[in-house]
Amino acid sequence: MKQLLGNAVVGQSGGPTAAINATLAGVVRGVLEDNGKNIAKLYGMKNGIEGLLREDLIDLSAFFGTSVEKLRLLEQTPAAALGSCRMKLPKPQEDRAFYDRLIAIFKKYDIRYFFYIGGNDSMDTVAKLTAYLETSDYEMRAIGIPKTIDNDLLGTDHTPGYGSAAKYIAVTMQEILRDCAVYRIPAVTIVELMGRDAGWLTAASAVGRVAGGLEPDYVYLPECVFDLDQFLADVKAALARHPNVVIAVSEGVRFASGRYVGEGSQSGATDKFGHAYLAGVGKVLEYAVRDSIGCKVRSLELSLPQRCAAHLASDTDLTESAGVGKAAVSAACSGVSGEVMALCRGEGDYAVTYQHHPASSIANGVRKLNAEFCAPEGNQVTDAFCQWLLPLIQGERELIFQNGLPVHLTF
Amino acid sequence: MKQLLGNAVVGQSGGPTAAINATLAGVVRGVLEDNGKNIAKLYGMKNGIEGLLREDLIDLSAFFGTSVEKLRLLEQTPAAALGSCRMKLPKPQEDRAFYDRLIAIFKKYDIRYFFYIGGNDSMDTVAKLTAYLETSDYEMRAIGIPKTIDNDLLGTDHTPGYGSAAKYIAVTMQEILRDCAVYRIPAVTIVELMGRDAGWLTAASAVGRVAGGLEPDYVYLPECVFDLDQFLADVKAALARHPNVVIAVSEGVRFASGRYVGEGSQSGATDKFGHAYLAGVGKVLEYAVRDSIGCKVRSLELSLPQRCAAHLASDTDLTESAGVGKAAVSAACSGVSGEVMALCRGEGDYAVTYQHHPASSIANGVRKLNAEFCAPEGNQVTDAFCQWLLPLIQGERELIFQNGLPVHLTF
Repeated sequence: MKQLLGNAVVGQSGGPTAAINATLAGVVRGVLEDNGKNIAKLYGMKNGIEGLLREDLIDLSAFFGTSVEKLRLLEQTPAAALGSCRMKLPKPQEDRAFYDRLIAIFKKYDIRYFFYIGGNDSMDTVAKLTAYLETSDYEMRAIGIPKTIDNDLLGTDHTPGYGSAAKYIAVTMQEILRDCAVYRIPAVTIVELMGRDAGWLTAASAVGRVAGGLEPDYVYLPECVFDLDQFLADVKAALARHPNVVIAVSEGVRFASGRYVGEGSQSGATDKFGHAYLAGVGKVLEYAVRDSIGCKVRSLELSLPQRCAAHLASDTDLTESAGVGKAAVSAACSGVSGEVMALCRGEGDYAVTYQHHPASSIANGVRKLNAEFCAPEGNQVTDAFCQWLLPLIQGERELIFQNGLPVHLTF
Repeated sequence: MKQLLGNAVVGQSGGPTAAINATLAGVVRGVLEDNGKNIAKLYGMKNGIEGLLREDLIDLSAFFGTSVEKLRLLEQTPAAALGSCRMKLPKPQEDRAFYDRLIAIFKKYDIRYFFYIGGNDSMDTVAKLTAYLETSDYEMRAIGIPKTIDNDLLGTDHTPGYGSAAKYIAVTMQEILRDCAVYRIPAVTIVELMGRDAGWLTAASAVGRVAGGLEPDYVYLPECVFDLDQFLADVKAALARHPNVVIAVSEGVRFASGRYVGEGSQSGATDKFGHAYLAGVGKVLEYAVRDSIGCKVRSLELSLPQRCAAHLASDTDLTESAGVGKAAVSAACSGVSGEVMALCRGEGDYAVTYQHHPASSIANGVRKLNAEFCAPEGNQVTDAFCQWLLPLIQGERELIFQNGLPVHLTF
């Protein structure tokens, strides 16, 4: 492989996670380890491709120097420290001027290595950039590094960021289950979890089953058709067993018709301006239980903390997220381009290796929960899922606190 | 003071907190330290007074023995490990039969010490029981030990449980602020926090200001009249300063008329069954911003984790919560009865002492945020509040995890 000397640029894109900065730290570590053999300097793009187009770049090599302390702080900082964007690139054949502009910027800063940390749209960016580069005489290597709490990317055993979100959900669900257990009055608590297209996050609420903890009575996933009568029958059956019923439900569950349960039209409610209330599935089911069963019922959403609760990140996830960032640099330096990094789980005791696949084969697919992870009744996950998940939520990082708050790094 | 030999009983009541079990552990430690001089055996009532009436008692002396390990696990367990209830006792003069039944149970188990950990209703229980005991020839000492995340009890610098809830809110708000900062598109995020009558919890969201962190643009408290036009003007002013606007609002904010902003009638929405939608203040303000400003806006509630996120408890709070439980035992053994424990903050460097006041003077009042803690504009807290709060959120306990989840103790 021909050696390629020059600078590198790294960006973050899409929704934040608790581990996306660990991957950034991994890229920094990878460049440090290269020690100038291939990569002279590492730039960071502010707000992803959008910042690159504005030439809003940070000299990360200068910022970090050889300070491990700053990297450690970066790893415990939630959300994209470089800022993010949601920008879908045009097709190369449709807007060559756009790519010519990008290439001009790469040339200006002598950028020969492009690392993009993100979800599906970011992998699409890498695929399109790669397709363009193949028609250009500018030599650059582009690598996508996956991140998403949703775990819905193809080609990887799990996505960096998922383990931390799953750990947050698993721990918080244990605490909610304890909270719900204190009274003897029949009550139903419905916990709405993220995951529009796949049930990976919602499923994580059940892992207590194999971890010596508690678990919700039922878990409703987008992979299984939602039936309101069956749901109400499930709740009644649970209330017959014990007074405190806890339900986990994905925001993405749908009726057989394909309509989302959480669509505002379900409740028929409009406000005084005529807006349909987007009630959310939790609220819709709360009202259904109140109407049909009449017991005490409440719903809650875990909301944003699912993707940004860095204070409870999984050490396994942070370690792998950093590892895959570092592996991306190593792969690029050895000649790989146009590929997306992946975590591959081996047989036997849990361990991952870092691999890569063509970006074009990964982008734009959605990975659903494996069929054997959903209980046939459509209202629970299987033990096989819980065992699959368990290694991903292991380990707690000792955080640096100051004045009672975790320290976050900013550029 | 005449020595009183016999057994003791302890109960938990009202809503859970992350620290109520630390207080229970403190009572156990206090009894261990007494070493049988006054208290032979400690019982725990399941589900508070309700369980006592059913004689649903646990021999806590036997359960814990001298194991410090079990006490440590109890201290990191959220929600009331003994179970809770919401039972308002009758007035002694109106239902002497009820109290005769209680006394018969105390006699049966030779209970001479009564410790009740709870909020306002629990302090009311202690006050009423004390009033009855004064008219009875049964000798027993009753002590109330406060707990509430709301910090709205009179007679104490702060309540056990508040510091942990405040720390959870403060840390989570830092994470949400980081999350909101990643995009450059103008967006408003409204975070609804607990506190129906007092703004202590909502105010905690601003502590980052004096702790080296971030803070929300505005903080709306129940102590200040809420004006929708002023709120919209505030949001517009913030959007003129930066794209990512974050608002903290208490569930208990009210208009000048006294009506809650979060009342369903505000939105005029009803569902297809004619129910008024209890939208919550966050949703109401989200719709107001959407209608009047039209930018991207979302609302979220931190919900139950505010009171049960033991994984992020304040070490200061846990230490004080245990300390006040132990001090209650010591006070009772030295003859105190009919009193409620309190935390008293000294001058100078932060330190608390454990004191007690007559239960009758504490119960049923609501302590609002001090006037000097609310900014005159009615949309922020002052630095004085942040400095007052800061010591209460200090310290993180090293938790015992197993299989990736914190270990919780159950009876």
